[in-house]
Amino acid sequence: MKRSTKSNRLIVLLTDFGRKDAFVGTMKGVILGINPNASIVDLAHEVPPQDVDAGAYVLWSSYTFFPKGSVFVVVVDPGVGSRRRIVCAEGRNHLFVTPDNGVLKYLLADQVLRRVWEVKNKSYFLQNVSQTFHGRDILSPVAGHLSLGLRPSKLGKEIVLPRSRNEFAFLDKKEGKKFSAKVIYIDRFGNLATNLRVRSGTDLMSETLRIRIKNCMIQGMSRSYAEGSRKLPLALVNSSNLVEIGVKNARASELLGVKVGERVLFEFVGR
Amino acid sequence: MKRSTKSNRLIVLLTDFGRKDAFVGTMKGVILGINPNASIVDLAHEVPPQDVDAGAYVLWSSYTFFPKGSVFVVVVDPGVGSRRRIVCAEGRNHLFVTPDNGVLKYLLADQVLRRVWEVKNKSYFLQNVSQTFHGRDILSPVAGHLSLGLRPSKLGKEIVLPRSRNEFAFLDKKEGKKFSAKVIYIDRFGNLATNLRVRSGTDLMSETLRIRIKNCMIQGMSRSYAEGSRKLPLALVNSSNLVEIGVKNARASELLGVKVGERVLFEFVGR
Amino acid sequence: MKRSTKSNRLIVLLTDFGRKDAFVGTMKGVILGINPNASIVDLAHEVPPQDVDAGAYVLWSSYTFFPKGSVFVVVVDPGVGSRRRIVCAEGRNHLFVTPDNGVLKYLLADQVLRRVWEVKNKSYFLQNVSQTFHGRDILSPVAGHLSLGLRPSKLGKEIVLPRSRNEFAFLDKKEGKKFSAKVIYIDRFGNLATNLRVRSGTDLMSETLRIRIKNCMIQGMSRSYAEGSRKLPLALVNSSNLVEIGVKNARASELLGVKVGERVLFEFVGR
Repeated sequence: MKRSTKSNRLIVLLTDFGRKDAFVGTMKGVILGINPNASIVDLAHEVPPQDVDAGAYVLWSSYTFFPKGSVFVVVVDPGVGSRRRIVCAEGRNHLFVTPDNGVLKYLLADQVLRRVWEVKNKSYFLQNVSQTFHGRDILSPVAGHLSLGLRPSKLGKEIVLPRSRNEFAFLDKKEGKKFSAKVIYIDRFGNLATNLRVRSGTDLMSETLRIRIKNCMIQGMSRSYAEGSRKLPLALVNSSNLVEIGVKNARASELLGVKVGERVLFEFVGR
Repeated sequence: MKRSTKSNRLIVLLTDFGRKDAFVGTMKGVILGINPNASIVDLAHEVPPQDVDAGAYVLWSSYTFFPKGSVFVVVVDPGVGSRRRIVCAEGRNHLFVTPDNGVLKYLLADQVLRRVWEVKNKSYFLQNVSQTFHGRDILSPVAGHLSLGLRPSKLGKEIVLPRSRNEFAFLDKKEGKKFSAKVIYIDRFGNLATNLRVRSGTDLMSETLRIRIKNCMIQGMSRSYAEGSRKLPLALVNSSNLVEIGVKNARASELLGVKVGERVLFEFVGR
Repeated sequence: MKRSTKSNRLIVLLTDFGRKDAFVGTMKGVILGINPNASIVDLAHEVPPQDVDAGAYVLWSSYTFFPKGSVFVVVVDPGVGSRRRIVCAEGRNHLFVTPDNGVLKYLLADQVLRRVWEVKNKSYFLQNVSQTFHGRDILSPVAGHLSLGLRPSKLGKEIVLPRSRNEFAFLDKKEGKKFSAKVIYIDRFGNLATNLRVRSGTDLMSETLRIRIKNCMIQGMSRSYAEGSRKLPLALVNSSNLVEIGVKNARASELLGVKVGERVLFEFVGR
């Protein structure tokens, strides 16, 4: 990643802070106090409270679509005030500033993080640091300074985060082969994203894949939700190349009574 | 509308994507990747899922307040992945990029759209187009290019959208005259906007209009919600010049048990 | 506060308009029509409908974190269309444009407002002013003009707002001393902010404070939510220096059945 003291990196905010309280707005105020020309984009703020796994999915499924140089600030932080670390991680094109609590797990699984630093240098924090709002007092000012070209190595010593394994399952196309996967994310529309990942170029339409979730069986893949029938679940490859289960114009999560973690079984049964 | 390759048009986003998932944020990332200086404004993102009619109302009631040259991107798109078209429509001062699914109906009723093009030219899409997220893969990159001055005619061939008729009713002030209208939108406060439109300069305060909705009768118009009495429904001309029914400091939709589509009867009964 | 016709003040929006309707987006359109280079930040838009007290808390707890010169536009306005005044208040570093309905009460209690003007000069309003959407027709255009350097004294005559008293209680550390406070705000996480304010530098950790709320007793203060035990309420000093009651990873408001206004009793019982 090119760095330049002249740069003005985009700042991207991802939190579970909602829109009811002052939390998100205050973070922006702090950033703009440090970098009055900062460009700030909201990635999402309605991550369910303290749901680190949901935050991890939202980040992983979107970060590649942001411009080179973007600084992601992720605050889904049930451990605020405890000894959990805050880190700054560098990917090929982006920086990620976040509590070290699992929100980077899918990026670690994909081995896209090159270097990681612990965020310790109080010169880049607000003067008074509260015990309950590090998003305001630590992460926002650090992001403000990074947006102005601060090198992450100034924030603290370099550390290593362990690689997450087994976050994803991969589909191999062999007849009779069975796979076990699980629901890892449920979106606003009630669609169920599984951790079963489809390698680019895999043709799932010309074969028959049988999918079981709860007491429901889906035979074959669809291309889009619009292909579905009323109230019948279908499976497709979602916009992040994961197999997803949904229902046309309805909420699969409610119709099937499924929560995150639900097991999904896949089996190839030939053409 | 003036066009200029030097221009940097404002981009206005209207979706049913909510703030829980990465959808809206990802769209902004894509736009900023194409036009790093893009100005992006959120119009609304909590349009009820797949509610094209609500999206149509939000767009119609607000677009005239945006600066000349603004590009509206509307993604309320239950048909994503199907054969429904994507269009770019040109009004007197604005561009509208959206699936062709009815979201433009009130603009078509008002005959403000001058020219419409089908959006087909893949040069302005992302390289990989998913079947489930055209907001990211087609509409956002197209808007990014339009914001930089791309002429809409580059997107595809010109087409004609049929005029919507009978979307609005108009109030004529003749004693004894009766009108039938319907509720077309319910806002956050539970107020019920009808499709009964009041021509600018019409004085409704000096006459008596009798309004029936469900088993409730309202006699005469109010100027504002503050004029109302506790738990009693009132009618006024709303900020979009439509007759609206509401209750002071309460939700008319719940008190009256009314949904979109509910019939409303109006009758002039003299002074 | 420095003023300059060259300035481009940040505009900060705080409303109860939500994200479902066109209200917030339309306000931004109006501002950008007047100042195409305006920087607009959302403070919060999910203030509960017509809850002026909640808006007052969100504003008070965040405004000091915004850059010098910021113009706050606050629209929590149940009295829209009535005779309630609209005011422009000047603090040491910021301007506040809002209906005069109590939303400034904590700023008035802190005596941070130096001068206040009534907003009356129609030259800075939209040409047609509705009776139901002054956020669009009055407050946004006024803010747009202020962001361009308009002096508040141009808006109308100077007025005096009465000081709010007794909004906060202050903790004195004397053994046996009892205090009565109340819950004034409940945030997204269900935490209960009280109006008991802790002066900077006060050490509450080395003494024993006993806290009663409903039929629940809390002995001693915690530093952070992470220190708490499952389902047991704790008390801490929140990021606005108020005593706050919460439960680790759960909603205190629901577990304790507490609403805004609930009385809280404090007593020092020695080390």
